[in-house]
Amino acid sequence: MPRLVMKFGGTSVADIDRIRNAASKVKREIDAGYDVAVIVSAMSGKTNELVGWVRDASTKPGTNERSFYDAREYDSVVASGEQVTAGLMALCLQELGVDARSWLGWQVPVRTTSAHGVARITEIDTANLDAKFEQGVHAVIAGFQGLSDEGRITTLGRGGSDTTAVAFAAALGAERCDIYTDVDGVYTTDPRITKKARKLDRIAYEEMLELASLGAKVLQVRSVELAMAHKVRLAVRSSFSDEPGTLVCDEDEIMEANVISGVAFSRDEAKITMRHLADQPGVAASVFGPLADAGVNVDMIIQDISAEGFTDITFSCPVDQVAVAVKALEDGKAAGTLTYDDLETDEDVSKVSIVGIGMRSHAGIASKMFAALSAENVNIKVITTSEIKVSVLIDRRYLELAVQSLHDAFGLEKAG
Amino acid sequence: MPRLVMKFGGTSVADIDRIRNAASKVKREIDAGYDVAVIVSAMSGKTNELVGWVRDASTKPGTNERSFYDAREYDSVVASGEQVTAGLMALCLQELGVDARSWLGWQVPVRTTSAHGVARITEIDTANLDAKFEQGVHAVIAGFQGLSDEGRITTLGRGGSDTTAVAFAAALGAERCDIYTDVDGVYTTDPRITKKARKLDRIAYEEMLELASLGAKVLQVRSVELAMAHKVRLAVRSSFSDEPGTLVCDEDEIMEANVISGVAFSRDEAKITMRHLADQPGVAASVFGPLADAGVNVDMIIQDISAEGFTDITFSCPVDQVAVAVKALEDGKAAGTLTYDDLETDEDVSKVSIVGIGMRSHAGIASKMFAALSAENVNIKVITTSEIKVSVLIDRRYLELAVQSLHDAFGLEKAG
Repeated sequence: MPRLVMKFGGTSVADIDRIRNAASKVKREIDAGYDVAVIVSAMSGKTNELVGWVRDASTKPGTNERSFYDAREYDSVVASGEQVTAGLMALCLQELGVDARSWLGWQVPVRTTSAHGVARITEIDTANLDAKFEQGVHAVIAGFQGLSDEGRITTLGRGGSDTTAVAFAAALGAERCDIYTDVDGVYTTDPRITKKARKLDRIAYEEMLELASLGAKVLQVRSVELAMAHKVRLAVRSSFSDEPGTLVCDEDEIMEANVISGVAFSRDEAKITMRHLADQPGVAASVFGPLADAGVNVDMIIQDISAEGFTDITFSCPVDQVAVAVKALEDGKAAGTLTYDDLETDEDVSKVSIVGIGMRSHAGIASKMFAALSAENVNIKVITTSEIKVSVLIDRRYLELAVQSLHDAFGLEKAG
Repeated sequence: MPRLVMKFGGTSVADIDRIRNAASKVKREIDAGYDVAVIVSAMSGKTNELVGWVRDASTKPGTNERSFYDAREYDSVVASGEQVTAGLMALCLQELGVDARSWLGWQVPVRTTSAHGVARITEIDTANLDAKFEQGVHAVIAGFQGLSDEGRITTLGRGGSDTTAVAFAAALGAERCDIYTDVDGVYTTDPRITKKARKLDRIAYEEMLELASLGAKVLQVRSVELAMAHKVRLAVRSSFSDEPGTLVCDEDEIMEANVISGVAFSRDEAKITMRHLADQPGVAASVFGPLADAGVNVDMIIQDISAEGFTDITFSCPVDQVAVAVKALEDGKAAGTLTYDDLETDEDVSKVSIVGIGMRSHAGIASKMFAALSAENVNIKVITTSEIKVSVLIDRRYLELAVQSLHDAFGLEKAG
């Protein structure tokens, strides 16, 4: 029988009524002839509660450089959230007459690396699940968790249940992986910014990756990467409606599309400019090495010539990392490893991006974007481009205006 | 190094501060030279929350005749409570500089029967723990849970963490098993009934068993049975003080003791009398078979002759089971499988018992008990005796009076 993976996020399993509602969606697919593997997150709020306890218990550095506690114990505590939902979902399915059982990461098993808290799935042995499917027993799988070679519980990092779902869809050869969430699909932009925002029927993996990493919090970036690598067709659907949602798929499956698929944005960015650096080989490394060590997520970077033998470097980062970034650079200057005159920070900027695989075959997209912004007197501070994306940094007060004007300029309210 | 098992119940690990407090007690024993295995319950209230969700999710009969839901899923959900505490305890120990790691039932492994919800431990393989002790790593073990031959999580039934603790103490050859709880030991009777109640320094396994099954809710009956079978020395201690508590041990270890160790009671009992049953072989079975099938916990039973060829049968049961008991008996009468004239119920009785291994070697204990009650005009309705116990059923309004007068009569306020 064809197989389907259905993943329900935290708000979709927040209480027994919602789990029951999700179970009814699973039953409908089973009735339609699918063998179903259901992947569940923790009930919403539970992961935060568990993480809070771990933090309360811990004040000293742990075994893992990414944490201030023993990440193996963190994983064992936090993975209990999905364990609870998996059992409850199995019970709710049984109530509907569906033969189902829960599987924890170690029971499948889902083999992962030993990088606790940020583990990666290395192998999913589906033999146990296959045998149960043969007997008509559907699977409910605790998302987000796996088993290390040392026999300890691992977790995949926040939002890791999406990754679990895609990995199972690939391992099981599922026809599709349905991600049920509290939004009903992927939109051309945030509907809170413009009512003209339109739900996309289909979007290419590459576009979804750009949108996911730009802050459209529908799908975890890793899960989209994994889906693209294994050609898993992903559907983003709402737990609270019966709408078909948005299919994330190979671009071959998308017959007609707009040149631009969406306008993404990241509100709370900052811009830092270093003036008059000695322009010599290794200068970029001397700047961005210390920033990386300090944990600053540098995004856009531009470098230009300011005067003979000197250069200016500008970069963007999340606004809440400015203090850390400035300290790292000032420490470098004090230690003599960095030489610059001035440091200018602008904490009132936002990033706006247009994304679309159509850009590859259409010229003039960037200039159309700049023209649209110029028409609204929005000043562009930094520009970066990729094959299917153009991003600009602008003053934050123009964010909504910029998004609306770009949405209009590229005609996103209408399907291509 | 000598080994110690320390078990902390739900109120002793109710929040991070309490877990931290418990961890400091563990550290003290480690500093004193012990290899310690810590057994933890779920944080108080958590198990009830989890059980509540399972019940909410389930309305249909399950796979297990004892439950109305799939007991395998129940176990997987409910066992998550101890999983959380185990990780948090390991973290709190690490904070104190103690090298410790958590172990779940399946990780040790703790092998059990497949009787989900009421599983029994069949084997504990301590090889993994032994190896870690060799490296100086102490163990934090999730109580209450194990692993079935089918690879599913099992639970031992409510209060099962005591059983886990004793089983580990036996398997590890521990010098002692300390049960930390919210009382500071075993008392001669409930201190809320008489201020003369005295904490016992030592009590024999057999006495503790009688007290436990009589409703002194300090230790789970099964854990005491297991301790007795494996000669595990059990100490009942308070998490909230540094008092030595009460040692439950072999009677050989108790040099001097009172003839009677304690006065136990069970407040909410009922008495049911069936009049004029045909006195023929099998009549008792015809009464108590249906009661057992109906799940009635019959306690005391007396049968006497009422008239030629007829008999009366009186039994006691918890007061909240009277309706079920009466229905079972009336159904039997209606179906013709039981013949009797009248059914009398008395829902206003309590059971009071004196317990002591000294009874074996001292005559006249029962008559001394009856005399003490008679002196207070307390009428005795039913009497049962065992080798180390005499129990009487009395009107509930005399309960406190009876306990106080027996405590006085046997001089329990003073150590023997």
